[in-house]
Amino acid sequence: MPYDENIKILDCTIRDGGLINNFNFKDDFVRAVYETCVDSNIDYMEIGYKADKKIFTGNQFGPWKFCNENDIRRIVGDNNTELKISVMADAERTDYHRDILRKTDSVIDMVRVATYAHQISTAVDMIKDAHDKGYETTINIMAVSLLSETILNNALEQLSKSEVEVIYIVDSFGSLYSKDIHRLVKKYMQYAKSEGKKVGIHCHNNQQLAYSNTIEAINHGAEYIDATIAGLGRGAGNCPIELILGFLKNPKYNLRPIIQCIEKHIPAIKKENNWGFDVAYMLTGLLNRHPREAIAFLDSKREDYTNFYDTIINSD
Amino acid sequence: MPYDENIKILDCTIRDGGLINNFNFKDDFVRAVYETCVDSNIDYMEIGYKADKKIFTGNQFGPWKFCNENDIRRIVGDNNTELKISVMADAERTDYHRDILRKTDSVIDMVRVATYAHQISTAVDMIKDAHDKGYETTINIMAVSLLSETILNNALEQLSKSEVEVIYIVDSFGSLYSKDIHRLVKKYMQYAKSEGKKVGIHCHNNQQLAYSNTIEAINHGAEYIDATIAGLGRGAGNCPIELILGFLKNPKYNLRPIIQCIEKHIPAIKKENNWGFDVAYMLTGLLNRHPREAIAFLDSKREDYTNFYDTIINSD
Repeated sequence: MPYDENIKILDCTIRDGGLINNFNFKDDFVRAVYETCVDSNIDYMEIGYKADKKIFTGNQFGPWKFCNENDIRRIVGDNNTELKISVMADAERTDYHRDILRKTDSVIDMVRVATYAHQISTAVDMIKDAHDKGYETTINIMAVSLLSETILNNALEQLSKSEVEVIYIVDSFGSLYSKDIHRLVKKYMQYAKSEGKKVGIHCHNNQQLAYSNTIEAINHGAEYIDATIAGLGRGAGNCPIELILGFLKNPKYNLRPIIQCIEKHIPAIKKENNWGFDVAYMLTGLLNRHPREAIAFLDSKREDYTNFYDTIINSD
Repeated sequence: MPYDENIKILDCTIRDGGLINNFNFKDDFVRAVYETCVDSNIDYMEIGYKADKKIFTGNQFGPWKFCNENDIRRIVGDNNTELKISVMADAERTDYHRDILRKTDSVIDMVRVATYAHQISTAVDMIKDAHDKGYETTINIMAVSLLSETILNNALEQLSKSEVEVIYIVDSFGSLYSKDIHRLVKKYMQYAKSEGKKVGIHCHNNQQLAYSNTIEAINHGAEYIDATIAGLGRGAGNCPIELILGFLKNPKYNLRPIIQCIEKHIPAIKKENNWGFDVAYMLTGLLNRHPREAIAFLDSKREDYTNFYDTIINSD
């Protein structure tokens, strides 16, 4: 079976995983993920958010909510490796003029702007800012399953004229099926390809489709692939990076370091945090909703699934 | 979204799930699955195997390994419902002349013959026997991922001339990807359709693809769908029936009774039995192997995944 050399894998274990524990991972886990990514020849590691400290105050947040330069360097040093480091910057929740340094002053390689469709003009400004500072950039249009064709087309039109290099399909609610993925990749490719841009895919596992939808996106032309170790991520979690390596069959990638990292670190994190498929997530995914009700249900250790079903099915 | 009225769902919770506990389910669970299937308007419930008592001796096996008529009737009475009852009969492990009664003497509606390709002639005899006795029949060709094109074509050719009504694709090792499913459904349809037969799909979750591969089979023409409550089944388990109901969108099916059954019965079964995705199953799936090594690894409570990886990758 041949493999596609153009596929890039982005590990977002710390960034997306941080949503389950307010980014309070211990340094030894963040360092283990970094070393695993280096050893496995993963292309990018996303180490956290560049959140606005004026909006996110208080001391509940660990360092990966903000990704200060000195925090990142405490883990990666000068990162003299092939692995590139990315951070995520949310539209309207990032003081990007101040907090995103010039590339020459930072160990970060790529800035990924996450945006809802209605914030797209802010996102385009953020892309320009990051691009002009010297970074690779991607845009992640969240909650695509809620957008009308017109709104999505307008957003893609605007992005196709921007400096962004990769436009991501984001299945925030884990509600998309393979046919939706095929349709979306085709559409995104139409806007991206003529401008020399790539398409990326970021899936959630609410309906046990994160991995398969990622494969479907790859089969239809997506080249930037988000995944996390052991599927770590909020709610039902993400596409597991260990599965994607198996699928890609690119001899450049090494699966063994990821298995080692899972063995050594995941059991302790599992003890303190919940993620992964659950029938409660299936129901929010099926209804194309944010998983917050399912997260609350499971966090409160409830097991009355029938009540949860009745409430969620009958709510407006 | 329109739905396909021709799709039939077969619940094999007890039959495939029984492989994890030697078919020692308590009657109240078997009855709960039966009542759930009736209430949800599932089409078929497979209640167990018709195993040969001369081969499977000793007292470790519960009643659903053999499915004596009186055991089935203890649960379903005369089954005056729309739900049809099926049993599985393994080629070369069933004393079918004796143990499969005439339909007029049995509450069973369908006999499903499971066969490896090399046993196909025996399987065809068993199909004829069951058909002549008055049953609906299916054939499940196991471990299809190990078969050469020629062997598979020969088997399908032979089956297309038999009395069987449904020919199942069985991903025994959970090793198939969507492209494999597309290719196999197309092939099976070529042999089945012209003879008025249907194609079925039975998937395992070793690579988290049981549900998505089932969807892919449906999208390409498969009409008989195997699934289990909570994905209960040996090793990584099966396609969860709750997910499939959500996908099909056929108003005939009710999801709520399945959620109720999961709430009431699955936690207790989970306490005593293991099933579901694990990295160990991913590795056997990736290597297109029987999951027995992964099952042994997990049964012995080992957590040294890297050793498991090294052993399995380097074994011949």
